[in-house]
Amino acid sequence: MLTVCLPGTGGFMPLVDRWLTCCWIEYQGHAILIDCGEGTQLALKEAGLHLSRLDMVLITHFHADHVAGLAGMLLSLGNTGRGEDQPLMIAGPPGLCKIIPALLVIAPLPYPVHLAELSPGDSLPGYGDLSITCTALKHRIPCYGYRVDLKRRPVFSPEKADALSVPKPFWKKLHGGETVQLPDGRTICPDQVIERPRAPISVSYCTDTLPIPEIAEFAKGVDLMIAEGMYGDDSMAEKVAEKRHSLYSQSARLAKEAGAKRLWLTHFSPAMQDPEEHLEAARAIFSNTEAGKDGMKTELEGED
Amino acid sequence: MLTVCLPGTGGFMPLVDRWLTCCWIEYQGHAILIDCGEGTQLALKEAGLHLSRLDMVLITHFHADHVAGLAGMLLSLGNTGRGEDQPLMIAGPPGLCKIIPALLVIAPLPYPVHLAELSPGDSLPGYGDLSITCTALKHRIPCYGYRVDLKRRPVFSPEKADALSVPKPFWKKLHGGETVQLPDGRTICPDQVIERPRAPISVSYCTDTLPIPEIAEFAKGVDLMIAEGMYGDDSMAEKVAEKRHSLYSQSARLAKEAGAKRLWLTHFSPAMQDPEEHLEAARAIFSNTEAGKDGMKTELEGED
Repeated sequence: MLTVCLPGTGGFMPLVDRWLTCCWIEYQGHAILIDCGEGTQLALKEAGLHLSRLDMVLITHFHADHVAGLAGMLLSLGNTGRGEDQPLMIAGPPGLCKIIPALLVIAPLPYPVHLAELSPGDSLPGYGDLSITCTALKHRIPCYGYRVDLKRRPVFSPEKADALSVPKPFWKKLHGGETVQLPDGRTICPDQVIERPRAPISVSYCTDTLPIPEIAEFAKGVDLMIAEGMYGDDSMAEKVAEKRHSLYSQSARLAKEAGAKRLWLTHFSPAMQDPEEHLEAARAIFSNTEAGKDGMKTELEGED
Repeated sequence: MLTVCLPGTGGFMPLVDRWLTCCWIEYQGHAILIDCGEGTQLALKEAGLHLSRLDMVLITHFHADHVAGLAGMLLSLGNTGRGEDQPLMIAGPPGLCKIIPALLVIAPLPYPVHLAELSPGDSLPGYGDLSITCTALKHRIPCYGYRVDLKRRPVFSPEKADALSVPKPFWKKLHGGETVQLPDGRTICPDQVIERPRAPISVSYCTDTLPIPEIAEFAKGVDLMIAEGMYGDDSMAEKVAEKRHSLYSQSARLAKEAGAKRLWLTHFSPAMQDPEEHLEAARAIFSNTEAGKDGMKTELEGED
């Protein structure tokens, strides 16, 4: 089960009633944070998330509204008692190894920070069975989208195992993907006792960007697609394109194309007071669309 | 008249109900901000202050809780329409010319930023009749206190002017400090028509620091002394000294010694939930002591 939360949903500047866009993905008490604008440490607190669980920070791009809260948050993380033996990974687009140390010049930390500059398409291992991939988006500066997949065990078939007279003590190993040798000398492969594979539990996060078709490919079949909705009103199309952002309707089209199960919109313009206002138009394109709200949370269980 | 506001009063990290310590000093629509931690741009907004009026930022020292909000705030200042012809001055301790550009690497600005590294005792001109001086405090890293003085015209004596038969059209110039020559050939100096000088309107801001005696000297006779109160409870003395901060009682003693008219305490520890709690003990030392509150504001009129 993957916990996904949007502690903040605003773009450009923090507002008194809307924190800057970021995303918290937690699995078995280990968390990944995507983006960290000014105030994100407070947004996490208000959302009831535990900073001490943070393993990794992914940065989409180096605009201040996505990264200016890093120094303060990492200092607060230091105050949770994190020490030398608990490194934090920060990954993002090229430039990271220069920019992050520059931002952290005011933040002496009691734990190590590991930096990773990614190339589009790179994969990173996360905690346990999590894997993280990135893709190039199309913004004014290099910007990445991220996808987190939690690999799931296939469906085990007790019937097949019984039919092959596999003793129960061997079931767990077989279900976990190991080939076993039985006391009677026979070798049994996992495939022989598996009913069917299960799709990973997956979430994608793509902002700030023009609505390029590559996003639909990248987010193929995700349980939850988190995408940009700078404005809901299609009449803002020109302004949004000029700034290299996306509209509700454009992200809804991508979600449909991706075959996503749900879509959460985020990164709202400060000028948009009510993100629910143009939601119906987006739902006409992709019905399972929601406008993000600070602190919005879900537990992704995957199918079956 | 000088407007002084404490948009935030917390130390170390922003809290959901307490912004980080900073100070706004405004005169005739031109403002100086001292310190800019994470969230200060929101603190200003909540306090009803107009970011567009900002002329100068003074930094006490380069710990994140005093400077990490700079990039975000300066970007928002850019959104107020500030352009090429409206430079912003940022001044502070040595290191500023390296650290500020590092922090602003994520913040491309549409207006020029002028940087000034100050030495202890330096003076800077502010808008109009404002002058700013700095002093070295005693913290873990180089840290400055600031004092802002608004020079005031002396009290004019119409009686003396009449006694000398100075025609009224010359009064304003004389009051402004100009020597004039009358139509009858006489030369009149300002001193001849002045009743008495008036003390400047003044405010001092000293945090984070041990309670060194130099602070009392620096803040001599100020209308408002703003000083550190990390804790109110004197039993915290050892911890506070070790971290090179100050207690309520220590700042109250400095205010008494300085002959300040009022004292505002600020930079409270996040562990201190109610800054009013130990106020009486501080008032026993210096009666005109107040615990800062986010958004606390006063108009300093000066005497007479």
